[in-house]
Amino acid sequence: MARFSSLIISLVAARASAFTNPGSHVPRQASVLRMSVDTDNKDPVRVGVIGCGRIGIVHLGAINKAPGVVPIVVSNPTVSKAENAAKQFGVPKFTADAMEVITDPDVDAVWICSPSQYHAEQIKACAANGKHVFCEKPIATDLAETVEAINACNEAGVKLMTGLQRRFDPNFLRVRQALIDKEVGDTIIIKTCSRDPSPPPYEYVKGGGGIFNDMAVHDLDMTRFLAGDDPIEILAVGSCHIDKSIEDLPGSEAFDTATCIIRYPNGVNAMVDVCRQSSYGYDQRAEVLGTSGMIATDNVYPNTAKIFKNDFTGNADMPYDFFLSRYFEAYVTETEEFCKSLVEDGPVPCTGIDGLVALVMSLAADKSAAENRWVKFSEIIEKVYCSSPTECSLIANDEMFPEGFKPSSDIADLGKIVLPDVDEQKKEKGNFMDRFKEAVGL
Amino acid sequence: MARFSSLIISLVAARASAFTNPGSHVPRQASVLRMSVDTDNKDPVRVGVIGCGRIGIVHLGAINKAPGVVPIVVSNPTVSKAENAAKQFGVPKFTADAMEVITDPDVDAVWICSPSQYHAEQIKACAANGKHVFCEKPIATDLAETVEAINACNEAGVKLMTGLQRRFDPNFLRVRQALIDKEVGDTIIIKTCSRDPSPPPYEYVKGGGGIFNDMAVHDLDMTRFLAGDDPIEILAVGSCHIDKSIEDLPGSEAFDTATCIIRYPNGVNAMVDVCRQSSYGYDQRAEVLGTSGMIATDNVYPNTAKIFKNDFTGNADMPYDFFLSRYFEAYVTETEEFCKSLVEDGPVPCTGIDGLVALVMSLAADKSAAENRWVKFSEIIEKVYCSSPTECSLIANDEMFPEGFKPSSDIADLGKIVLPDVDEQKKEKGNFMDRFKEAVGL
Amino acid sequence: MARFSSLIISLVAARASAFTNPGSHVPRQASVLRMSVDTDNKDPVRVGVIGCGRIGIVHLGAINKAPGVVPIVVSNPTVSKAENAAKQFGVPKFTADAMEVITDPDVDAVWICSPSQYHAEQIKACAANGKHVFCEKPIATDLAETVEAINACNEAGVKLMTGLQRRFDPNFLRVRQALIDKEVGDTIIIKTCSRDPSPPPYEYVKGGGGIFNDMAVHDLDMTRFLAGDDPIEILAVGSCHIDKSIEDLPGSEAFDTATCIIRYPNGVNAMVDVCRQSSYGYDQRAEVLGTSGMIATDNVYPNTAKIFKNDFTGNADMPYDFFLSRYFEAYVTETEEFCKSLVEDGPVPCTGIDGLVALVMSLAADKSAAENRWVKFSEIIEKVYCSSPTECSLIANDEMFPEGFKPSSDIADLGKIVLPDVDEQKKEKGNFMDRFKEAVGL
Amino acid sequence: MARFSSLIISLVAARASAFTNPGSHVPRQASVLRMSVDTDNKDPVRVGVIGCGRIGIVHLGAINKAPGVVPIVVSNPTVSKAENAAKQFGVPKFTADAMEVITDPDVDAVWICSPSQYHAEQIKACAANGKHVFCEKPIATDLAETVEAINACNEAGVKLMTGLQRRFDPNFLRVRQALIDKEVGDTIIIKTCSRDPSPPPYEYVKGGGGIFNDMAVHDLDMTRFLAGDDPIEILAVGSCHIDKSIEDLPGSEAFDTATCIIRYPNGVNAMVDVCRQSSYGYDQRAEVLGTSGMIATDNVYPNTAKIFKNDFTGNADMPYDFFLSRYFEAYVTETEEFCKSLVEDGPVPCTGIDGLVALVMSLAADKSAAENRWVKFSEIIEKVYCSSPTECSLIANDEMFPEGFKPSSDIADLGKIVLPDVDEQKKEKGNFMDRFKEAVGL
Repeated sequence: MARFSSLIISLVAARASAFTNPGSHVPRQASVLRMSVDTDNKDPVRVGVIGCGRIGIVHLGAINKAPGVVPIVVSNPTVSKAENAAKQFGVPKFTADAMEVITDPDVDAVWICSPSQYHAEQIKACAANGKHVFCEKPIATDLAETVEAINACNEAGVKLMTGLQRRFDPNFLRVRQALIDKEVGDTIIIKTCSRDPSPPPYEYVKGGGGIFNDMAVHDLDMTRFLAGDDPIEILAVGSCHIDKSIEDLPGSEAFDTATCIIRYPNGVNAMVDVCRQSSYGYDQRAEVLGTSGMIATDNVYPNTAKIFKNDFTGNADMPYDFFLSRYFEAYVTETEEFCKSLVEDGPVPCTGIDGLVALVMSLAADKSAAENRWVKFSEIIEKVYCSSPTECSLIANDEMFPEGFKPSSDIADLGKIVLPDVDEQKKEKGNFMDRFKEAVGL
Repeated sequence: MARFSSLIISLVAARASAFTNPGSHVPRQASVLRMSVDTDNKDPVRVGVIGCGRIGIVHLGAINKAPGVVPIVVSNPTVSKAENAAKQFGVPKFTADAMEVITDPDVDAVWICSPSQYHAEQIKACAANGKHVFCEKPIATDLAETVEAINACNEAGVKLMTGLQRRFDPNFLRVRQALIDKEVGDTIIIKTCSRDPSPPPYEYVKGGGGIFNDMAVHDLDMTRFLAGDDPIEILAVGSCHIDKSIEDLPGSEAFDTATCIIRYPNGVNAMVDVCRQSSYGYDQRAEVLGTSGMIATDNVYPNTAKIFKNDFTGNADMPYDFFLSRYFEAYVTETEEFCKSLVEDGPVPCTGIDGLVALVMSLAADKSAAENRWVKFSEIIEKVYCSSPTECSLIANDEMFPEGFKPSSDIADLGKIVLPDVDEQKKEKGNFMDRFKEAVGL
Repeated sequence: MARFSSLIISLVAARASAFTNPGSHVPRQASVLRMSVDTDNKDPVRVGVIGCGRIGIVHLGAINKAPGVVPIVVSNPTVSKAENAAKQFGVPKFTADAMEVITDPDVDAVWICSPSQYHAEQIKACAANGKHVFCEKPIATDLAETVEAINACNEAGVKLMTGLQRRFDPNFLRVRQALIDKEVGDTIIIKTCSRDPSPPPYEYVKGGGGIFNDMAVHDLDMTRFLAGDDPIEILAVGSCHIDKSIEDLPGSEAFDTATCIIRYPNGVNAMVDVCRQSSYGYDQRAEVLGTSGMIATDNVYPNTAKIFKNDFTGNADMPYDFFLSRYFEAYVTETEEFCKSLVEDGPVPCTGIDGLVALVMSLAADKSAAENRWVKFSEIIEKVYCSSPTECSLIANDEMFPEGFKPSSDIADLGKIVLPDVDEQKKEKGNFMDRFKEAVGL
Repeated sequence: MARFSSLIISLVAARASAFTNPGSHVPRQASVLRMSVDTDNKDPVRVGVIGCGRIGIVHLGAINKAPGVVPIVVSNPTVSKAENAAKQFGVPKFTADAMEVITDPDVDAVWICSPSQYHAEQIKACAANGKHVFCEKPIATDLAETVEAINACNEAGVKLMTGLQRRFDPNFLRVRQALIDKEVGDTIIIKTCSRDPSPPPYEYVKGGGGIFNDMAVHDLDMTRFLAGDDPIEILAVGSCHIDKSIEDLPGSEAFDTATCIIRYPNGVNAMVDVCRQSSYGYDQRAEVLGTSGMIATDNVYPNTAKIFKNDFTGNADMPYDFFLSRYFEAYVTETEEFCKSLVEDGPVPCTGIDGLVALVMSLAADKSAAENRWVKFSEIIEKVYCSSPTECSLIANDEMFPEGFKPSSDIADLGKIVLPDVDEQKKEKGNFMDRFKEAVGL
């Protein structure tokens, strides 16, 4: 019985991904304008925040500005941090214990800003307590646990939003909007480039899951966000150029540089290159060629000043130097968007499935680089076996079905939805989410 | 006795201008970092806001974010606007009557965001009630009243900050910082360009005081901010290109376009051009040539995306379209800086004298364009006669002293300080404020 | 008799200036395409070149490429330079004596690339020998001689082209074309900026005629080229920032920096700033605001490469460093255009009058800076008194007519044509050249 | 006997490729400066040109400007074109028959600008007649013939230069120079992008050899030029987006879009994307990330003017629209460089082997896209069997040696040199050409 792949994604509360969310395109001044949203006739949404590190503080600041949302409680294991945050943002309660946030009867929604290894457990606890969840990427560090966490929320009928903050960056959003509006025609090629200013220490890399999982996953997700469709297969290559000491680490942990080609339906290919060292600031660009033109973004500088001297002519300052400075506004917009979906009881802009697919893509990239061949995403997803929505595990290789033997139809159908057949895609018009919703009767 | 110009600027609370304020250079992320300022040992500063129009709302938002500052009351003649603002920002009190804000015993400082014609009266009322004042530009619409308002605050020992928000724009600030740090050597030429997206209606222009007063004044101030020194004389030219109906209006109200050259000490010249219509968004640029290089700023776009099509290759979007979008962050920073000066009891970054000099510059430009000749700024300031610090008036032309007859020495000394002689400037090292402070014993 | 200004410009061969020359807009590839011009039925135009310095060599290279034009003889006082040039470009004859070029019976046209002080004499000799003339700027170093040289050519019926090479730079040409095509509507403001990489030695500045004559003259001409109209008056300011030793020199020789405002008809103002030191390469930019938009040019870099490193992000290389590299193509195009006007017997793109007006503008700037006031260009031109077309002199100040006394009508008419009254300009539609031609019956 | 791959590249006249040619970095003004090269003591090099189409005319123009080189004869089947070209450039002889150029006893070197199918035959004829050869890309349309042509030149001891004009573009050259000088450290990733303005007609695509051969080959060569090393293997993907009618064509003729990853030694990867339609001009960019920075080029515009209007802000003109305008200077420089190598009897900057490797790369890309897998370049080259240097053929698949069976050592050695083993590469310092020259005793 345990021989066949069996991925169950429960559907009670499944909601559309950002693909179909027209509200994503938020101009900078939106926060001012949005303040005039009429919140008179509604009770405020009361929220708690787990984790008062720097990213928790960013989200707290955004929560504080969002109309109709009131922070009730914050937690942090080092309780003085929680206390300081509470004082800074006028939050009435603070605690060292995350469970006190999750179980607080006054709390409607929880922001999970704790370290990654606690995410899945805390999401499931939120679901069990009927709380909506915003969870920083990733949902879980493991594929099976990710599916369990998503299913737990769906079963409980609570919202689950994944923190894929790049989707809220005004530059990438502008590209996305151009593609939706066909400003450059139909998409032909998508290119993204992502380079960190400097490599993390050996200790971070070791056990971090490799370059595709801890770094490129954002780019893989961005290609899917821009493609507006689900990917088919990936070809990845990695190499090591900066700190040669990591070359001894296993798998893609030995890489500080990687390039990928990802096939999307209709002949669209995405090219991704990432590197752990750019030395010239945080490099985050996208370029899309369409049938009637091209759109491309550049990095962001703190001001427009240029200096011209006898040894150089160029920008007065370096581009923003890392994710927190570059994506500061994106983090704020992300939280504001989730607040809005809570207040208006609307769909979340980044679903749990968005987080799941991002993980699947990074795992497939890993496999491709290791085996030096194209890897279909269905190869990854078909390894998840769920005996119930919240009891999932990965099938060991020797338990895999023999070639030619297909998994049972219900599972296959789901698999096809998540990772569709290209030819079928060509025939059946409409995108994944349309068909997904049709399939589940929404 | 009333024959001679007599400008008295009282000195009780005179404070340094932005020239000497090293804290002006505020990076974008500063607001987050600044929140960790320790405010434990101080009582919060309690503030009121007069005027809940769009600029009042912007300042309220900034006040709300500033640590150690608490909004107590807001006012607006249309009281429903005050009520909405109070609800939006959690302000306990609102009123239709500005005087209730000014006289509120719980209020330490007042933000004046009312129409210009009420500014001087409200500033004086604040001074009379011992309240610190933030006043949107201008301090007053009339030169004598401006001096009275400044003197009233000085006499009362309350802080007066003028809202010259461009000084807080990260682009202009970067240029200012470069000049302070001699990144391009000693300043040779300063150029600024300011163009509104489209001309205001005839009704606005008529009686608005002319293009130098209602528009170029910001640029004139910016050249002074960048020069880091007080100007000497101005040559201005105006013309009308867009809406020919205004050509019948008097003085510089008939202009929609103007160019100026302003002489600063040490042979530095500033060139300013302004136009009421740019048609391509709000155009706000500066360029400074120094002995070892050049620094120049560009306009600000909402994102970095560029589109390449068969009919054009350029920015995906237009630059920010007007002052509220372009200077949104600057308005916020400006208020944060005043809040900081209140909490820390430090100097304000833009003084009343900064506002006064800006007005003098626009009046001199007016005169230069009308008379087609160089006009010294001392010609303007010498017309103010104050019988006491808060009783000032302009001397009619026929009361002016005959040529060769100098005003009394005490007045002349002040005049020289405000608008210094160039040759003397060359001899005496040190800038205006140093000498100003020296002169008044600070 | 010698009391009144009397400017005679003889009209035998007067031709339209570049203002009305639609052929000026030459794309880069033009030289290839132009080669297919049918030259079968014409005898080749045989030319001589006076001066084999670097600029002579540039023109020889261009002559060599132009179809239908054959170099016959070159001269240079250091005859070995002439010999080398002859060998390099396959020119049959060379000589040390410029007059041998001018009197050579095989020569149809002469390129004058000698030092400025010889220009007028050589132009007149060419006219006397019936040779067409290309003369590097300036026509003469003196106003009266300039008029004489122009008149000599007109009397003799030979073409005279002045070398104002910036008019052939593809960047400035593009702006000119945009203005002709009303791409940005009607012109409102013209701005040009010109900065040399480093100041010339004291010896060059001393006796060089001052910054307006030896440097800004190109910019003054450019504003006229872009305005497409004749200027009215100028306000100029100079200062010294770099090499303080020149401060002792007379007049504008003491300036290394200057700014000007030039009034053109219809309220158009031009702003010019020049500096003898930019330290970041040769800075040559123009910007024009029109009623429906703006056009602006940037400096030219040898390639598009940008480098991004940990201490800067900017251009891989500096912009072209001086006039010969920046305007190399412009020099070639300029000569090609004159060759074309010779082969096709058409009008020259830059006339002698263009050279004359440029000189008048720089002299007026000189006067304005010295006297600190607006100077009308007619003040300058009215000082020229010609007893015959080729016998001109400047009227000494004490010979000038008393105020209210107007010069004789024929002279005044000419003066008005060259430097028109604004109000009259508004009434009479049509530009200078139209009216000029009408006035002289062409 | 015919069972084993046997690639013989004869070595009589083998010369270094552009990799080791420090003279490649030619500034724009070089033509002027180079004219002072002393050519006195040498007889001029006399050359002939086969083909007077547009590219032949470009080369003739460049030949005409090069010092020490004299065109003697031109040919074209439509003889009137040859006659016109001869007249235009002063060439004494013209003919309809290419062989008359090749056998002309006065000719030292021949430019082959005829259609591709004649190249190999004409190169061999040149070699047989002892003439040096410049041949427009490709050397031949077939791999075996390419090797034969190279060998024929080597055997005859004549120079063979392949026309890979992009290597002479100032933008790509600047990147190359930066990498040689380690301006951005050691190379990590190379990215090039190449997009034609619009797709060729169906008739051109059909039989044209596919997108890798007729378009991407320049990009593949560029990655090798920038890598400064020989590539190892390639992964290519193609798709069809524009003109769906070509989808029925065989192999890569069905693609109008392609992406490749090419592995180079030391973990360097190159990413190439090409498309037959950009719609916004000819898009030709390169970007290289190094260990200490990045260098990137942009497209080239005919001028620097930017226009700002109410519907867009961007470049006044489109970038150069196709290869002849974009690479006009590069074609000229290319010919000048070959002229220089003739006059100075030095190495040619682009060898026949450079042309051969480019062809091998495009054939491997073809195979990769067809078989959806990584293809080593050695797979391609090992199929060439030469019974003598100028008698080569491709081994049919069924004649290939069985796996594990290696070709004879001499052949294998050559194969390894051309397409080296990575591990060995790491061990043996020095690049291909060093080792190549060492191997052949140069």
